[in-house]
Amino acid sequence: MPRPPLLIDSPANPRFKSWESLLEGKGIRKAGQFLLAGLKTVPEALTRWPDRFQAILVPRLEWIEGWPLPDSIQPVQLAPELFRVLDVSGTNYPLLLGTVPSMPVADLKQPPRGLEVVCALGDPANLGALLRSAAGFGAGAVVLLEESANPFHPKCLRAAANAVFSLEIRRGPRWSGLAGAAGPLVALDAGGEDLSRFDWPHDVRVVLGEEGQGVPPDLAAHRLTIPMTEAVESLNATVAASVALYAWYLRA
Amino acid sequence: MPRPPLLIDSPANPRFKSWESLLEGKGIRKAGQFLLAGLKTVPEALTRWPDRFQAILVPRLEWIEGWPLPDSIQPVQLAPELFRVLDVSGTNYPLLLGTVPSMPVADLKQPPRGLEVVCALGDPANLGALLRSAAGFGAGAVVLLEESANPFHPKCLRAAANAVFSLEIRRGPRWSGLAGAAGPLVALDAGGEDLSRFDWPHDVRVVLGEEGQGVPPDLAAHRLTIPMTEAVESLNATVAASVALYAWYLRA
Repeated sequence: MPRPPLLIDSPANPRFKSWESLLEGKGIRKAGQFLLAGLKTVPEALTRWPDRFQAILVPRLEWIEGWPLPDSIQPVQLAPELFRVLDVSGTNYPLLLGTVPSMPVADLKQPPRGLEVVCALGDPANLGALLRSAAGFGAGAVVLLEESANPFHPKCLRAAANAVFSLEIRRGPRWSGLAGAAGPLVALDAGGEDLSRFDWPHDVRVVLGEEGQGVPPDLAAHRLTIPMTEAVESLNATVAASVALYAWYLRA
Repeated sequence: MPRPPLLIDSPANPRFKSWESLLEGKGIRKAGQFLLAGLKTVPEALTRWPDRFQAILVPRLEWIEGWPLPDSIQPVQLAPELFRVLDVSGTNYPLLLGTVPSMPVADLKQPPRGLEVVCALGDPANLGALLRSAAGFGAGAVVLLEESANPFHPKCLRAAANAVFSLEIRRGPRWSGLAGAAGPLVALDAGGEDLSRFDWPHDVRVVLGEEGQGVPPDLAAHRLTIPMTEAVESLNATVAASVALYAWYLRA
């Protein structure tokens, strides 16, 4: 039987204030919760991963009338102006409140199994699009270095199209902690071997440099470069990584 | 000899107000000007395309002391709080004021020459990253449908890494006006032929569907699909397009 709805009208309500903090990485880390938005992602997540969510937030209960909500998910009616604050992407559609799963610490001394992506993308939308590509091209795990954006940031979740829920995401060290990581270790960087001619192993760790900075020069990794014209110096970091994952996926 | 600097202190100054309008596509269209920001892009653009710019904006003239500015570029010192309004990306670096070039109307009755990308990306950052890929993989032209974001939007310029200045950008019709476009016409869409096995012609028009909507079903184009797992329904539109451009660039 569905639970009776909770009504929240005041911006001073402690729960609302806690949810408002989920719009930034810091608040997500502190509260261990996240907000999921999206006309496709919300119904899909409710169907496929219902256990990950505790509440569904709406400005009008009619929005979720007839939705087959499990008992574990609390319906919450927010005053419209409060709902709009949380609906940062302007989806005008129910929001899901979820718990950030515990992300295991990556053991980089162990060799990779399958394709493992290591990155520190600071822009949450770029990170989200990369997670989507990683899921699409069959990455076994994604290791996020400490400098990375939070994968449960609203902009990342939006760009990831629910890839965060099916991917194995692990917490990595800082850039400096990558030294000594087990190989095969491949880095996308300028001046390396032609990526299109690389003989990809099944098990490989792909390290993606930071936008505008590349990979630390002292990292002991096999450098690969995407062949292209000289019209631009480099590609967008997420695009470059996705091209590499595509090449791995197609490996003979 | 460098021109004497112009000093602007008031938010009511008509020039400042006009420049402030350049933070949105509508203002750029109306004024026919744009603002370029970026630690790499600004010096590169000044060196390679100086004729495209009329002014350089700074909060302190020391920032551009010793810069070899052509006489045609007016130095402008803005009050720091006015500069910050225009420096939306927070680069804390000189901004360039440029003139939007006249973008010719695409004649889609003519067959393409080389690779031509047709798209209507509404997100300026996604469009910028796509333009960067188009330049990197040697596209001869990019046709922006009417529904597209403005290529001179600050977020697009920032993501494009100066690709807008080397690419041939043409104005296209609305989606409905694509009917009857000359081929070879290829569309990235679900349920098409495996893109990795496609025999790419040298001259080809690649149509990129809209995020979440795909290509209009009645468009007479050869459908190509990027092979991937079923973990996600699709890739980010810019990522998908970039993978296709990479495949074209590598064609045998």
